[in-house]
Parts: sequence; structure tokens; C-alpha cells
Amino acid sequence: MSEMEVTAQEIAELFGGALKNCPQDRVLTEVLPLDTARASSVSFLSNAKYTAKALESAAGLILTAGGTDLRARPVLEVKDPYWAFAQCTARLHPEPEPEFSFAAIHYTAKIGVDCHISPGATVGARAIIGDRVVLHPGVHIADDCVIGDDCEFFPGAVLYRRTRVGNRVRIHANSVLGADGYGYAFHDGRHDKVPQVGWVEVCDDVEIGACTTIDRGALGPTRIGTGTKIDNLCQIAHNVQIGSHCLIVSQTGISGSTTLGDYVTLAGKVGTAGHIHIGARSIISGNSMVAKDVPEGSHLSGYLARPHREWMESQAALNRLPKILKKLKGDKTDL
Amino acid sequence: MSEMEVTAQEIAELFGGALKNCPQDRVLTEVLPLDTARASSVSFLSNAKYTAKALESAAGLILTAGGTDLRARPVLEVKDPYWAFAQCTARLHPEPEPEFSFAAIHYTAKIGVDCHISPGATVGARAIIGDRVVLHPGVHIADDCVIGDDCEFFPGAVLYRRTRVGNRVRIHANSVLGADGYGYAFHDGRHDKVPQVGWVEVCDDVEIGACTTIDRGALGPTRIGTGTKIDNLCQIAHNVQIGSHCLIVSQTGISGSTTLGDYVTLAGKVGTAGHIHIGARSIISGNSMVAKDVPEGSHLSGYLARPHREWMESQAALNRLPKILKKLKGDKTDL
Amino acid sequence: MSEMEVTAQEIAELFGGALKNCPQDRVLTEVLPLDTARASSVSFLSNAKYTAKALESAAGLILTAGGTDLRARPVLEVKDPYWAFAQCTARLHPEPEPEFSFAAIHYTAKIGVDCHISPGATVGARAIIGDRVVLHPGVHIADDCVIGDDCEFFPGAVLYRRTRVGNRVRIHANSVLGADGYGYAFHDGRHDKVPQVGWVEVCDDVEIGACTTIDRGALGPTRIGTGTKIDNLCQIAHNVQIGSHCLIVSQTGISGSTTLGDYVTLAGKVGTAGHIHIGARSIISGNSMVAKDVPEGSHLSGYLARPHREWMESQAALNRLPKILKKLKGDKTDL
Repeated sequence: MSEMEVTAQEIAELFGGALKNCPQDRVLTEVLPLDTARASSVSFLSNAKYTAKALESAAGLILTAGGTDLRARPVLEVKDPYWAFAQCTARLHPEPEPEFSFAAIHYTAKIGVDCHISPGATVGARAIIGDRVVLHPGVHIADDCVIGDDCEFFPGAVLYRRTRVGNRVRIHANSVLGADGYGYAFHDGRHDKVPQVGWVEVCDDVEIGACTTIDRGALGPTRIGTGTKIDNLCQIAHNVQIGSHCLIVSQTGISGSTTLGDYVTLAGKVGTAGHIHIGARSIISGNSMVAKDVPEGSHLSGYLARPHREWMESQAALNRLPKILKKLKGDKTDL
Repeated sequence: MSEMEVTAQEIAELFGGALKNCPQDRVLTEVLPLDTARASSVSFLSNAKYTAKALESAAGLILTAGGTDLRARPVLEVKDPYWAFAQCTARLHPEPEPEFSFAAIHYTAKIGVDCHISPGATVGARAIIGDRVVLHPGVHIADDCVIGDDCEFFPGAVLYRRTRVGNRVRIHANSVLGADGYGYAFHDGRHDKVPQVGWVEVCDDVEIGACTTIDRGALGPTRIGTGTKIDNLCQIAHNVQIGSHCLIVSQTGISGSTTLGDYVTLAGKVGTAGHIHIGARSIISGNSMVAKDVPEGSHLSGYLARPHREWMESQAALNRLPKILKKLKGDKTDL
Repeated sequence: MSEMEVTAQEIAELFGGALKNCPQDRVLTEVLPLDTARASSVSFLSNAKYTAKALESAAGLILTAGGTDLRARPVLEVKDPYWAFAQCTARLHPEPEPEFSFAAIHYTAKIGVDCHISPGATVGARAIIGDRVVLHPGVHIADDCVIGDDCEFFPGAVLYRRTRVGNRVRIHANSVLGADGYGYAFHDGRHDKVPQVGWVEVCDDVEIGACTTIDRGALGPTRIGTGTKIDNLCQIAHNVQIGSHCLIVSQTGISGSTTLGDYVTLAGKVGTAGHIHIGARSIISGNSMVAKDVPEGSHLSGYLARPHREWMESQAALNRLPKILKKLKGDKTDL
């Protein structure tokens, strides 16, 4: 994606730290998380619970806070590793300047056969659109999007740059795919933006309701699996990975980097923490809040979500609690 | 609505089942729920708790699962009645091909006097718009919509085909009326779409906030009663029926086929189950989840919602629960 | 803002009440809340708990319900003071007629240097746009908006009239700033609109996610402080005041007139009551509901939100409640 490069020494000078176990002239060309980083990657460690990952990482340079012992790993100690990582991302993965064409359909876009591009729809530079695609009025497809065949996007649907969509995908009105993920690094009393340089990938046969938002990955994709159906007003945060044939009902929110197996159902208004996994074929009842990993085939309810039957029992008990208190005080009311 | 027809035998051949109590040449022209079905209707029974309804139904053909005893009713036994019903819907109620006019205002649309159609607004085929209507930039009115007098629709508001709106209705920016309801029938490992062939009907003097979604009915209308006011970011699912002069506050979600009497207040972030009734003049506190029918004039709170005073008592008791546990273990702490 | 005026006697005749302590020919030119009202202002008292405020108010005329004793304050007794106040607002603060230009960019708008106005974007009358601003396709800027330098607004973002935006502000796709606040006065069996004549003010370095709604003030501004970052699908109601460098995570809703200090974090799906204050540097956990004022530096959780540790303890106790009940009935299960 990037054609930029920077040496380890240049990074050290940027943040005023000292390199350990890393040649000054090491060339770095990308930023990546600890587990996928390679010799050409800058990565970071800001939370001690990921130390084991850092020790196993193949990263060419790891940004850490002072005092962290990563043995022989190549490190640069900096005051705020996550913020420094964000700066490296901006340097190594700069966004291309948008190409303002002053035309509704950019001359470099490729449109398949039997498509209908409505009045007020726009298609950006180098976008590729398959056959028999319908873009309703006011649909906006940004630069470098790739759309399959037989898709229908309803009025006001917006695809930010580099969104990838499969075949037979329907996106309802005013939904937004690929807006920046919500990522900031706190530094000097302000929240500095962590560049969001990933994208959104939607597989075949997906349907997405109205006014739903699916953010681009910070790095790499946010992904919606084959045949998954998403209702209105849902929020899918950056780097979420949703399996195939899931049902995500209205007003549900899935926090960043959370993954769902296949055939998961999240009933309406569910919320999930970030960085957790919800196992295949699990069902989460409406209005529940899922705070940790969920084994395959679970049925959870409540805030915080736990096994449905347990939750039902504790709710029944809660309803009787006022009477229990009276009894404990000597009242004769039956429990 | 439909001008299609199919015989009972053709349906039987489609799904490979055998007709009972039904002549092969019976002509069927529509799909309808059990309680409104007539001799020309296909209906279905997939949940045993509606068996009594099926026994009373006037439907010309009822799709059921094998082994259901509906006495003398005309039935076709199929593997998955709901999915088969969805297929019949697609056959008998096909969506018309959209008429792509390549014009912002279709030549068959009728616009009343003293209207203002802004730059970037579009009006579809056969749409009828009353007098003194203001369409702000980027408003999209699809085919066959009917709009009354003195309405104002703000930028980016979208009305899907066949939406009906009364007089003096205000719809704020980026709200969506008439997107497909969230209906799928599970079949052979995938969620097949249940055609959503109903519409949205909004009565006089309604105001709808920004980024709110009101889905079309699966069959028949989703309906918003006279004088009802809906805030931002609300979700009104397919076939919901809202009475007159209700208040639906921000981020509330009402599930499919639920009905509200007149003068109901749902404070912010309320969720409701589907297929329930909330009685007139009821008040549901903010953030509550309503799981079952609510009598007229109720005041409910909580998750799950119950009478406000009971809920307050149980919350107060819950806050003292840690101390109670200590006491039960022999601690001397006062309750 | 207003150049209208009305005498106290004209107001009295409008609602059929009698003036007390107020000359008939007193000229009133504006409506204002009790605490900011001056000699030229109409204000109102409809809730007895604000009586002290009314006694100290400098308002030229206070609308009250019959039987309220405000000593020497100038009052007009009316049947429904809030509704009467709404009528006065409509009279003294009439909305200007929109200037329909039939052009995408109004000839009176001022656009800075090096701006990019995309196809399908519109800019209203007298709007002022700074330098190096990017308006993506389908962005709609209404009359009298003022935008600073170096802003980027993504497709379908809508700014209602008189919205004010600082420098380096990013607004993502399909978000809506300045729609009417949700204000109605119940009168004669219907909800009459309370005119929303305020505006939205967004300070420097703010980022706003996709499909988020920020309503205009009823009177005066709704305000988002410097450096605050708002995620997708959030609802910020009329007259909310958010401090600097706050984080408002996805699907959060803040009710009317609530204020946040600086560096407040509201995690995802938080709800707040209206008219409360959340102190600086407070953290509210995801899915919590805040019902009353929050001291500085608090960490609250739950529904209703209370100190995080207390809430954790009561949840742990709740999970054990079914066992406790059994024990109280003589069962030998350990607590």
C-alpha cells in the first residue's frame, strides 16, 4: 500500500529516544500490529499484557515505554508508544491527495454493463463497478472502490475510498461504509488522530440496512462475511471481523477489533466490548452488553451478558429482593 | 396491488408437497397473514401457538410444517412454511422494475403549486406532491410516493417507493422512510430474503427527527399516527403501528409489528420486543426494555421493564445487596 | 437576532390573562430563560422548583400558572406557561423565509481560497467558508453558516442554517448539525412545536463521526468544545454544552441542556438525563445511564450509573442472589 520508507535512526530522532538492538540504518516501510509485523515493520507495545506477543514479534522496530524489558528485540523507548506509532503511521501510510475531478463520474472509473447511475450519484477515480449495478440518487462511491455484480445501493449510501464490495450486495439509504475508525492517542493534553488507513470489505450476498455505519480498519480491513444481514442504525467499528450468515439486528454496536464466528445472532441494541470473540452460532438477546469472549453456541442475556438461564433466574430473584429485605428485618412476608 | 396469479397445484409443485382439502386449480393472487387472509390468499403457520388462528382463517391455502393437524382447512405441507411463504410473496407480489428516467424529476410526477424543489432533489415516477411543499437539497422521493400539502423535508431525507405522507409533515435531514424491513427466512444454511412489499404511511402533523429509520411493512403499511413526534436516530421496524400524539424520544427502537395506542411516551433509548401492544397513555422511562404487552396508562421502567415503583424498589434493594450478603455471613453491618 | 417587538398588553390579550406588576405598554423584544432574561425579555415559570430563580429574574414579564406567588415580579398568569412561552418565541423570533436560489451555490455565499466544492454539494445564502475547505459530494451547507479554515466534510453531511464551525473540523458522512431540538408543549390534546431558534457551535479541532446528530439550541447554542471527538450515531440534544477534549463514543445520547466539563469520556451507548452536569475528567462506562449530576473525576457504571466499584459489587451480588434465596428457604447451598 505504501511506497514510503524511513530508517530506524530517523524515527529515533523524531521522538528523541535511543535505539536498542536495532541498526540505525534499518529501513522500515510500514506499520503493523505485533503479531503480523515483519522485518520491515514498525510496531508498538503500550500495554504490559501484550509483552509476550512483543517478545515473539518479528517487527523490525518496536516502540515501547521506558523500562520495558524486551530482551533482544529491537526497540525504541519513547514517552508514549501508541502516539508515536500513530505518527509513524501518518509518515509511512500517507493518504493520497483526493483527485478532484469536478465531474460526477471520474473519467478513470470503470462501469460494467447494464448499470444504472442515477442523477446525483458520484463515482470516484479508478473505482471499478461490476455489471447490472444500480446506484440510486445521491449515492457516493469514492476513489478506488471495487464493486461486484448485481448490487443495489439506495439513495445517500456512501462508500469511502477503497471500500470493496462483493456480488448481490444491497446497501440501504444513508448508510456509510469506510468512515474513519474512532482512534486517538492522548498526547500533551489533547487527542491526536491515529491515522485510519485500512478499508471495509463486504462479501457476497450481504444486506445492510439504512443509516448503518461500518468504519474502515485502522490498518487492514473491517470485514463482513458472506450472507450476513445487518439491520438499520448499527455501528460496526474499525477492524471488526464478522463471519458468514450472521444476523445483526437494529441499533447494535460492535466495538473495535471484535470478531464474530459464523451464524451469530446479535438481537437489537446489543453492545459488545472491543477485542473479544463471539463464537459461532451464539445468540445474544436484545439490549445485552457483552464484555468478554463468548464460547461457540452460547445463548447470553443481560447487562453484563451471561448465560440466558442464569440471567433469567437472577432477574426473577431481583424482583423479589425488596420482600427479602423486609423478611431479613423480621417481617413475615413470604419470600 | 398484485396482478399475478398462481394455482394451488403450481405452488405444490414448487415445494414438492401434497395438497389437502384444496382443489388443484384453486387460483391464488396474494399472500396475507392468517387473520386477514381470504379465499384468494396464501398464508402460513410456522409457530404452533397460532394454530387456533389458522383453524379460523379464511385463507385459500395455508402452508404448514408436516404433522400439523388443521382439520378441514386447505393446507400444503412443506419443509419450512415461512421460507415457502417468502417464495410465494416474491412470486405474487413482484416489485415493479424501477423506471430510470435519467432526470431529477420524472416527467410523470405531479407537483402542486408554490412548491420548492431544491438543487439535487429528485422525484420519481408517478409521485404526487401537494401544495407548498419544500424539498431541500438532496431529498429523494422514489416512485409512486404521495405527499400532502405544506410539508418540509430537510437535506438528504429519503422516501422509498409508495411512501404516503399527510399534511404539515416535517422530516429532518438524512432520515429514511420505507427501506426494507429486516425479514429473512433461514433455509439450506442461509438467510433468504422475505420480500418486503408493504409501505410506510405517515399521518398529518407528524415530525420526524434526523437520521431516523422507518421501515416499510412486509405486507401492508407501517403507520405513524396523527400528531406523533419522533426524535433523532430512532428505529421503527416493519409493520409497527403507532397511535396519535405519541412521543418517541431519541435512539428508541420499536421491533416489528408492535403497536402503540394514542398518547404513548417512549423516553430515550427505549427498546421494545416485536408483536406486543403498548396501551394508550403509557410512559416508558428512558433506557427501558419492554418485553411484553403493556396495559393502558402504565408507567414502566427498567430492563426488563416493570412498574416504575417496583423497579425503583428493586434497584434500591440491589444497591444494598453487597451488605446483605455480608450480614448473611455473620457480619454485623446494618441492612 | 430578532427585530420584532410586542407589548405586555398584546401578550395578555393573546392568552386572555391579567398582568400583575407590569405596565401595559412595556415593550418586549425577545424570549429568554429566567436566569439570562432582562427587562426586554419574556420568560416563564412552569415548574415550582424554579420559583427561587423566578424571584431573582430580571425578566420584563414572566408567564406563570395561576396561583403562583412571585411577589413583586411582573407576571402574566396563563393556563399553560410553557406553551404560551412557545407562542411568544414564534412571535418574537420568527424564522426568516429561506431564500430559494435555484442554484447549488448561492450568489451571496463567500468561499475562501483553495476550497474544493464537489459535485452535488450546496452552499446557502450568506454562508461564509474559510480557506482550504473540502466539501465532498452531497454536502449541504444552509443559509448563514460560518465555517473556518482547513475543514473537511464528507458526503451527505448536513449543516442547517446558522451553524458555526471552527478550524480543522472533520464531519463524517451523513451527520446532521442543527436540526430542530425535540421540544413540544402539550396543549389542547396535541403537542405544539416549541420553536427551535438557536444554533450549533463547533469549536476547533473537533471530529464528528458518521450519522451523528447534533440539534440546534432552542434558544442560544448547542456547543461542542475544542478538540472533542464524537463517534458515529451519537445524539447530542438541544442546548447541550460539551467541554474541551472530551471523548463521546458511538451510539451515546446526551439529553437536552446537559453540560460536560473538559476531558470527559462517555464510552459507547451511554445515555444521560437532561439538565445535569458531568464533571471534568469523569469516565462513564459503556451502556451506562447517568441520571443525576456527576462530580469531577468520577468513574461511574451501570443503569442507573453509580461509582464503578459499587456497581461491580452489586452485580457480583446479583449473580449470587438465586443461591441466597434458596439458602433463606433452608437450603444448605453455600453463599
